[in-house]
Amino acid sequence: MTENITAFDANLRDCAHQVRTLLEKILTVQPKHNEISRPEKLLLAMRHGVLNGGKRIRPLLVMESTTLFDGNAATALRIGAAIEAVHCYSLIHDDLPAMDNDDLRRGKPTVHIAFDEATAILAGDALLTLAFDIISDDATELPATTKIELISSLSRVAGCGGLVGGQIFDLAGEHNELSEQEIITLQAMKTGALIRFSCQAGPIIANAPIADRERLSEFGAAIGLAFQLADDLLDITADTSTLGKTAGKDVSAAKATLVSLHGVDWAKRQLGGLIQQAEDLLKPYGDLSKRLVQIAHYIIERKN
Amino acid sequence: MTENITAFDANLRDCAHQVRTLLEKILTVQPKHNEISRPEKLLLAMRHGVLNGGKRIRPLLVMESTTLFDGNAATALRIGAAIEAVHCYSLIHDDLPAMDNDDLRRGKPTVHIAFDEATAILAGDALLTLAFDIISDDATELPATTKIELISSLSRVAGCGGLVGGQIFDLAGEHNELSEQEIITLQAMKTGALIRFSCQAGPIIANAPIADRERLSEFGAAIGLAFQLADDLLDITADTSTLGKTAGKDVSAAKATLVSLHGVDWAKRQLGGLIQQAEDLLKPYGDLSKRLVQIAHYIIERKN
Repeated sequence: MTENITAFDANLRDCAHQVRTLLEKILTVQPKHNEISRPEKLLLAMRHGVLNGGKRIRPLLVMESTTLFDGNAATALRIGAAIEAVHCYSLIHDDLPAMDNDDLRRGKPTVHIAFDEATAILAGDALLTLAFDIISDDATELPATTKIELISSLSRVAGCGGLVGGQIFDLAGEHNELSEQEIITLQAMKTGALIRFSCQAGPIIANAPIADRERLSEFGAAIGLAFQLADDLLDITADTSTLGKTAGKDVSAAKATLVSLHGVDWAKRQLGGLIQQAEDLLKPYGDLSKRLVQIAHYIIERKN
Repeated sequence: MTENITAFDANLRDCAHQVRTLLEKILTVQPKHNEISRPEKLLLAMRHGVLNGGKRIRPLLVMESTTLFDGNAATALRIGAAIEAVHCYSLIHDDLPAMDNDDLRRGKPTVHIAFDEATAILAGDALLTLAFDIISDDATELPATTKIELISSLSRVAGCGGLVGGQIFDLAGEHNELSEQEIITLQAMKTGALIRFSCQAGPIIANAPIADRERLSEFGAAIGLAFQLADDLLDITADTSTLGKTAGKDVSAAKATLVSLHGVDWAKRQLGGLIQQAEDLLKPYGDLSKRLVQIAHYIIERKN
């Protein structure tokens, strides 16, 4: 198992490096066709928000779920980078004073602390917009119909019925006690939808059959739930320096989570069941799916 | 001329009504495929920001530039609505306390006043995301290649090298005196790019030849400049109740504009030249372009 973990770590680092290199290349001052000028301050804030040592779990899921169906790795990297841009924009906006008011993200000052609030709002806006630029760009070598399928899904999982809507529910949860069903819905929207889409993106990129897309989507749903449970557990059990963001936030905000409702032991049992479910879903692919299974394990065993 | 103006007014009102009706239909609580749930509060804030009696100049430009090349009107309406969603998101974010801190927009409370700051940020995010949903949706009857062309252009004119970048320059201009060239660049990014794209969208939708796309793009550039000059003039000459937003903002923020640099008379002469240039560009289309020329005139003669 140690050997596997080491190989997985190398794989994770390699993916993170590729995502970083691509986003660095994209976020340069040279304007592209149809652009007028790229303000340096805005670019610096976008880079601060996106080139910040994130684990790049979502791009890794896109890349491995693409490889599983023999899809193009360079294309998967670009789609992964687009999804990461959406993820990072949502973190920048979540951290704003009007929302979670957080000064620290991955051990570094958040964008509105390193720059200012207006710049952070705009850097988030520009990263969200950039995601659609990256997918539609000629450099993303996919048929237009596939690009449209990806853009349609991404806009739905990121918009009012997904990521953004989840954040509204989350903020509401700081003032009102949410029911268990409301917590499940909010987490599916805020965390689950983008992770699920990352897993589904692979078979879409590789033009795999519908049945495979659905299987990978179910896999994504299981590990999305596991990811959120693991996050809620970490908020209770880890300290701020390990976490790289403020620990105990949910407790201090009196924010209900499934872990606060059902306890740590229940959460650990649930995690076991979800990982089993995720593994079972990938059984038909045999050894080819080994790396995706490793990601599932990493998600529940990570320390930050 | 009175007859023309009356016909034009009816045309403008009809387009605004169609845009409103479509956006109302799109912004309902029923989640679409790939969405989980649409929070009512978020929808209300999005509707407040987008169903607010705007003039819908941009959708009108899309519709008329599509009609000029015999393109599909229903499709043009959807693309126009997407562009309007981008325009309205940018207004919601511009009005935020961290940016222009404005309480009034089109004579009504801005979104962060009617709701709260977090909700306004998220409503803007969701409207921006929605624009890409609308274009990529099956209901937009266009070949995938055309949709990708529209999405690529829209993401470029709206992103760090266009709309968002223009707002960063605009905020910088409140603290530092901008040069004439800097003002021209910022206005091209903040106002010009989206108006230009609205004019270019028609020939793209209608699959017209490149030469026509370029001609309409030049027409869009001319009326974009005229639009901004007219706006700067109105800021000096109109009062708040006519304008529906706070008048004299540029003067009180000591914000340099081309009008403040060169004076009202210069600006009026410039406007005359730009309208002439816009008319000349459309001469090859003869009577068919009458409505687009009327929009150009409306832009410089409007009172708010």
